[in-house]
Amino acid sequence: MENIEKIRHSLSHIMAAAVLEFFPKAKLGIGPAIENGFYYDFDLKEKIVPEDLPKIEAKMREILKNEIIFKARRITKQKARAMFKDQPYKLELIKKLAGKTVSAYQSNGFIDLCKGPHIKTSKEILPDAFKLTRVAGAYWQGDEKKPMLQRIYGLAFSSKRELDEFVSRQEEAEKRDHRILGKNLDLFVFSDLVGKGLPLFTEKGSVIRRELERFIVDEEIKRGYKHVYTPDLARVELYKTSGHYPYYKETMYPVMKIDKEELILRPMTCPHHFQLYASRQHSYRELPYRIAELAKQFRYEKSGELTGLIRVRSFCLADAHIIVQKEKAVEEINNVLDLIDYAASVLGLETGVNYRYQLSLGDRKDSKKYYKDDKAWDFAENVLRTVLIQRKAPYFEAEKEAAFYGPKIDIQMKNFAGIENTAFTVQYDFVMPKRFNLYYIDKDNAKKEPIVIHRSSIGAIERIMAFLIEHYAGALPVWLSPVQAWVIPVGDQHLEYCRKFGAELSEAKIRVEVKDEPETLGHKIREGEMQKVPYLLVIGDKEIAENSVSVRFRSKVLGRKNTEDFKVRLIEKIKSHKLD
Amino acid sequence: MENIEKIRHSLSHIMAAAVLEFFPKAKLGIGPAIENGFYYDFDLKEKIVPEDLPKIEAKMREILKNEIIFKARRITKQKARAMFKDQPYKLELIKKLAGKTVSAYQSNGFIDLCKGPHIKTSKEILPDAFKLTRVAGAYWQGDEKKPMLQRIYGLAFSSKRELDEFVSRQEEAEKRDHRILGKNLDLFVFSDLVGKGLPLFTEKGSVIRRELERFIVDEEIKRGYKHVYTPDLARVELYKTSGHYPYYKETMYPVMKIDKEELILRPMTCPHHFQLYASRQHSYRELPYRIAELAKQFRYEKSGELTGLIRVRSFCLADAHIIVQKEKAVEEINNVLDLIDYAASVLGLETGVNYRYQLSLGDRKDSKKYYKDDKAWDFAENVLRTVLIQRKAPYFEAEKEAAFYGPKIDIQMKNFAGIENTAFTVQYDFVMPKRFNLYYIDKDNAKKEPIVIHRSSIGAIERIMAFLIEHYAGALPVWLSPVQAWVIPVGDQHLEYCRKFGAELSEAKIRVEVKDEPETLGHKIREGEMQKVPYLLVIGDKEIAENSVSVRFRSKVLGRKNTEDFKVRLIEKIKSHKLD
Repeated sequence: MENIEKIRHSLSHIMAAAVLEFFPKAKLGIGPAIENGFYYDFDLKEKIVPEDLPKIEAKMREILKNEIIFKARRITKQKARAMFKDQPYKLELIKKLAGKTVSAYQSNGFIDLCKGPHIKTSKEILPDAFKLTRVAGAYWQGDEKKPMLQRIYGLAFSSKRELDEFVSRQEEAEKRDHRILGKNLDLFVFSDLVGKGLPLFTEKGSVIRRELERFIVDEEIKRGYKHVYTPDLARVELYKTSGHYPYYKETMYPVMKIDKEELILRPMTCPHHFQLYASRQHSYRELPYRIAELAKQFRYEKSGELTGLIRVRSFCLADAHIIVQKEKAVEEINNVLDLIDYAASVLGLETGVNYRYQLSLGDRKDSKKYYKDDKAWDFAENVLRTVLIQRKAPYFEAEKEAAFYGPKIDIQMKNFAGIENTAFTVQYDFVMPKRFNLYYIDKDNAKKEPIVIHRSSIGAIERIMAFLIEHYAGALPVWLSPVQAWVIPVGDQHLEYCRKFGAELSEAKIRVEVKDEPETLGHKIREGEMQKVPYLLVIGDKEIAENSVSVRFRSKVLGRKNTEDFKVRLIEKIKSHKLD
Repeated sequence: MENIEKIRHSLSHIMAAAVLEFFPKAKLGIGPAIENGFYYDFDLKEKIVPEDLPKIEAKMREILKNEIIFKARRITKQKARAMFKDQPYKLELIKKLAGKTVSAYQSNGFIDLCKGPHIKTSKEILPDAFKLTRVAGAYWQGDEKKPMLQRIYGLAFSSKRELDEFVSRQEEAEKRDHRILGKNLDLFVFSDLVGKGLPLFTEKGSVIRRELERFIVDEEIKRGYKHVYTPDLARVELYKTSGHYPYYKETMYPVMKIDKEELILRPMTCPHHFQLYASRQHSYRELPYRIAELAKQFRYEKSGELTGLIRVRSFCLADAHIIVQKEKAVEEINNVLDLIDYAASVLGLETGVNYRYQLSLGDRKDSKKYYKDDKAWDFAENVLRTVLIQRKAPYFEAEKEAAFYGPKIDIQMKNFAGIENTAFTVQYDFVMPKRFNLYYIDKDNAKKEPIVIHRSSIGAIERIMAFLIEHYAGALPVWLSPVQAWVIPVGDQHLEYCRKFGAELSEAKIRVEVKDEPETLGHKIREGEMQKVPYLLVIGDKEIAENSVSVRFRSKVLGRKNTEDFKVRLIEKIKSHKLD
């Protein structure tokens, strides 16, 4: 264990000791080190409020004024039971632990059931490099049937500088939080009557969504994809045939029984696309057969896991399934990664900087989780590895992360706060063709079995939107901006001219608003910047006289520009999806 | 009853007599006159096959060679029971009939339980003005728990000319049937595993759908609509609040219970849009507030009612809800009808020719079916009537056809076979604003109650697609055609040039295919015409030499055209949604 982790864990003991000074009757849960800090769970009648945290923090610093030595003790269970007789959670833990003795740590007057390790002395703790941050409810042992405890979180680092950096990064991340920006910029809302995890996109949020959707559909069609529409629901039988049902049942919506049919909302699109492929016979000349769809999918995420647009109960995936000869898999996966890299670059994201690749492998020994066919797994994993090496892609391998039907490449996207998540994925599938009897007629007129590549180009529209909102702190590239320009008259006498100019921009499909409210120029400019409107176009006497507009672009004053020139450049910028 | 109906009904008796000559053991069901003809139901062990129909028809004509007098007879039930002792279905009918006597008709040797009326003599029947058409299964008394009988259908008219006209119109309608064209032109398929009434759109069908969707979304945005995305499902509570639930429950999908939530697939979009509107406060300056969506909706139609793309279990409606001041209703409904007329005209449909308006009214006496507020009904009906009269629109009034929340204008579209159906609708709603507490802040700072206009511009995408496919017999306008042009080389030596030209058209977003198959030019041209590809572009030595293409447009030879000119014109034609 790294020393900083020992410091974090030791701080949780010191925090528990401090809490006991304020609340002597508190029952203790557990207090581990976590990423960037630590926490401890308490069961007590009084509600710990945010205002308590500075007090507890001060008490901890007071405790730390005297050196504390952390001493490990090995004691019999019997002795432990006596020692923790007033601590029911500790007694529960003692009962569960194997062996006749348990480990405890003493730090001055505080003793805790704990397997360690700890730092030797509190001198290793810098009193200005930790900070309590928040209190939240947490079920004992994460089990919602068990009591809800109060969890106090703290941050701790090896230096004050590191702590300060982390905190300011956190603050920036909060400012960029897509849930907050989504509300402030009026992009989407939730409604209790509609239900949790089901966002309603406003006019502005819908512009972003529609632009993303059209961009990716057009790009995929250009690259030879057949873009289709298939139903959002199907008979349960379909997912039993695919074999998805047992794996996904938990997060699928319940079956809808009507008449003699059992229907269910789809958790994935692949079997639908296979039905399209199988609706007629295909020759090797038609392969790779690339079926794509903006596919609504439905998964019933637990309410605790729902997060803004990132984790929702219904999402729209830029999905595709490619039916291709096994021998052409390397070439086609390269095509897919080309598309992903291209789409990411248009969105302003760079390989190696914003994302890297994870090669997710299977486990030959686990034939429950992974379809049993060692040779096929070896071949498939090798295909994916070859592609990544050939491309000199920044990648790493992850064991036991494959789908049940084959290995995959996960595109791991790093957000502003440095947290990595799977954004899109490319999966190699050698199982579904068998299950759905997918085949093609080869040159020799024989029926052959293809493989399937499951892939997403820009992932779920909701999720990439959330990511982009945070990445750009709401100031999206012009082509994605809900409102691209405000036309602001200097005075009322310029309003008519502004309206005409606004109509002209509208005609050219530029999303523009003419700000005719009775407010000052300064107010409108501030408001426009707050609303992240990329272009603020001010027009007064001078501009009208010389046929120009005064252009402000994202707080930068670009000065007066010829009206026609400006318009032509803006149209071109939007059309070519240019970044700022 | 009109005489032709008597003739039709009498023919059913004659058909029954003819069938009995071939199948003396046949048990008879009933044999009424129907639109355009008649049928009779038979229960017999042998399966009647289509090849039997000419024989039965010949037998009928043989019977008709002798004059038949139809004689009405009133007989006691007792006598009737004896008379029909071998006819169980007739016995069942006798039992159900009220009174002590029943009516029967005798036509020469054939006697049938029947209340008539009939023609007096078979001389009124023209032997060449009727025709047996098909045989189909039909449950006795339409009850699926009762035996399945065999139903023979026949056509009958007052003259051979009328019969011939009807038959040829039918044949044309069958050729235009979107289900048949959908299959032949590879536009959509159904899958047993996916489920009934759930079409899967192929690449080609999806092109039509996407073009329609983008056209209407762009047009609506241009006209000031806010185009949004809202969830396909919601808590049941939402539809209880709107009051839809009791009215639509029968055709809604079953409730999905998870955790403590009850979710349901949406049967309509309005309450979703109201949640968006209600998510913040609105000023009178923002009205009319037009919220539009390409909204998926889900209704569980009975399997017997499913018809290709016309009646499906999940459809996508070009839907909108306009929140507007009551005083501005006339103006805004005019705007809506302007949009509908414009969209229809772009699709090649004309007011008065292809469609007319139905003013669907409420019923002041039925407060169960219609929200009770006589004054509001009077006002609303008058608004709609005023608009229709002002516009000089071809319209008629229909009693008791309103929605529960107000009257509506239904756009009644006539298909090729002359059958009229509601295609889109414009509804005036004075109930929902109360239910969802929708309001706006007026000039005087007071909260005021608006009204809602529910409307669709081009209806359900599936249904308008079906309609257009039939209207154009598959040969859709160029901008809607899945493949807009084929480039056909005269010989192999022209292939490379064709490929370059094809790529150039593709680059200009024209949907083009280069036909490089080893088949003759003539074969490719015939195939292209069958596939309804609007432009067939043939290129050989001459064309290459003079930088031209030989253009065939829908079987018309337009001759050689300069390549660049042709391309520019075609781009313009597509972009402007021009009809052929």
